[in-house]
Amino acid sequence: MSRHSLVRFGVSIEHDLINKFDRYIGRAGYGTRSEALRDLIRAKLVEEGIQDPKAAATGVLSLVYDHHQRELEDHLTGLQHDHHEQIISTTHVHLDHHNCLEVILLKGSAGEIRDIGAALASFKGVKHSSLNLTTTREL
Amino acid sequence: MSRHSLVRFGVSIEHDLINKFDRYIGRAGYGTRSEALRDLIRAKLVEEGIQDPKAAATGVLSLVYDHHQRELEDHLTGLQHDHHEQIISTTHVHLDHHNCLEVILLKGSAGEIRDIGAALASFKGVKHSSLNLTTTREL
Amino acid sequence: MSRHSLVRFGVSIEHDLINKFDRYIGRAGYGTRSEALRDLIRAKLVEEGIQDPKAAATGVLSLVYDHHQRELEDHLTGLQHDHHEQIISTTHVHLDHHNCLEVILLKGSAGEIRDIGAALASFKGVKHSSLNLTTTREL
Amino acid sequence: MSRHSLVRFGVSIEHDLINKFDRYIGRAGYGTRSEALRDLIRAKLVEEGIQDPKAAATGVLSLVYDHHQRELEDHLTGLQHDHHEQIISTTHVHLDHHNCLEVILLKGSAGEIRDIGAALASFKGVKHSSLNLTTTREL
Repeated sequence: MSRHSLVRFGVSIEHDLINKFDRYIGRAGYGTRSEALRDLIRAKLVEEGIQDPKAAATGVLSLVYDHHQRELEDHLTGLQHDHHEQIISTTHVHLDHHNCLEVILLKGSAGEIRDIGAALASFKGVKHSSLNLTTTREL
Repeated sequence: MSRHSLVRFGVSIEHDLINKFDRYIGRAGYGTRSEALRDLIRAKLVEEGIQDPKAAATGVLSLVYDHHQRELEDHLTGLQHDHHEQIISTTHVHLDHHNCLEVILLKGSAGEIRDIGAALASFKGVKHSSLNLTTTREL
Repeated sequence: MSRHSLVRFGVSIEHDLINKFDRYIGRAGYGTRSEALRDLIRAKLVEEGIQDPKAAATGVLSLVYDHHQRELEDHLTGLQHDHHEQIISTTHVHLDHHNCLEVILLKGSAGEIRDIGAALASFKGVKHSSLNLTTTREL
Repeated sequence: MSRHSLVRFGVSIEHDLINKFDRYIGRAGYGTRSEALRDLIRAKLVEEGIQDPKAAATGVLSLVYDHHQRELEDHLTGLQHDHHEQIISTTHVHLDHHNCLEVILLKGSAGEIRDIGAALASFKGVKHSSLNLTTTREL
């Protein structure tokens, strides 16, 4: 049996709860209950998986920074080169006169990605940062 | 059909994903897949439900504070009396020489509960606060 | 110098940012900038602190469950007795015809508290659970 | 006074708390207390700001999907064209034999971005999604 072949099984859910879930499925735009349940299961497994610092992970780091801040771009570039094995790509957007958005895609262990994210976030001039971690092991 | 009677239906999930979910079910201690799926569904519906400031909700507010802080207890008590319709009960624990934990149970709209929580959290001497909101509408 | 004596130091913040922060301070009801900053610092330290499974922590576990569910209350009570060293107190609220709220206060390592919370949450009949963890080491 | 000119003021913090904060500053790599405090303030303001569905926001949406899923790429592309005013750019990464990562940068109101994110996440074949929202109004 291939890892992607479908397994079919029966589930029992209270009348009232499945009605509410069906309305959620409609709002969210899912085609079937199975699809919506698969997404809930995967989200739970990923949430658990990224707790492990050694888990193979993908990170999307968003940094908003002031490009008038001298030397920041050099520092950001330098640190990215130090971690070139983990950094897949960078996308840069000019948000307004002062602010740039830099989105950095990373691959590595969850722990490594968190450390690189913290180092980049603490540079002077970086105003806001957020990191999304996903593990593909569970997907 | 009563709102609590069970509805049974079939679900299709990839072989690989259901294997991982079964291991999660074992770790978490669930008896059946249906039980674990019901919990995922309810958690999702509650997460959505509490976005609505008018949703009927239950709140559990935890405050850690320094009981040496003069007048704080009077302020906390005063504000709780102003909201006696929303406050169900209070549990007080002496954590150590300096710190007390006060857990306040609230009932009302999600918006009201958030406002009361913010007001209590900002008192001088309150060192840490966190609020758990649940809506029973979805449960 | 006592651990609670105040240290005074200067901070530089952009004109625009401190204006926005002052409006936040007003909305949230803080008396001074120092108080609001102390709360931000403590929240950050606690957020970091509870990552460590060995950190001394306090937990507030909220469970919503159906009291018609046979044997659930026995199971909940049994598991709580198995962990009587960690469980400080329990508060029980009748929410509506079907639903009860049980708020359990725990003390122990962050890891222990998470494990007990997961075990209680997975009982059949427990519909929703959430756990607030605080470390007092940082407060 | 320009919006970016610095305002200097005094802050009082307990001896014990500022010691712990200084250790955090060291771990995180900040140069000065002021920089670390500015980041805490901005994070708090952004957290508040994105609650408002009308706030001008930037979103970074990460989708992991199975590129063997027929028609998914057409659907993703179609929906992105329907929202071309909000979508700034897209970066695509081949994670492994089955999984692709697509990172979509969006600009618009916080509410619009959340709706587009939910619509893309519910497509059949999208296995995991997460959305980072930032408001630049507070930065």
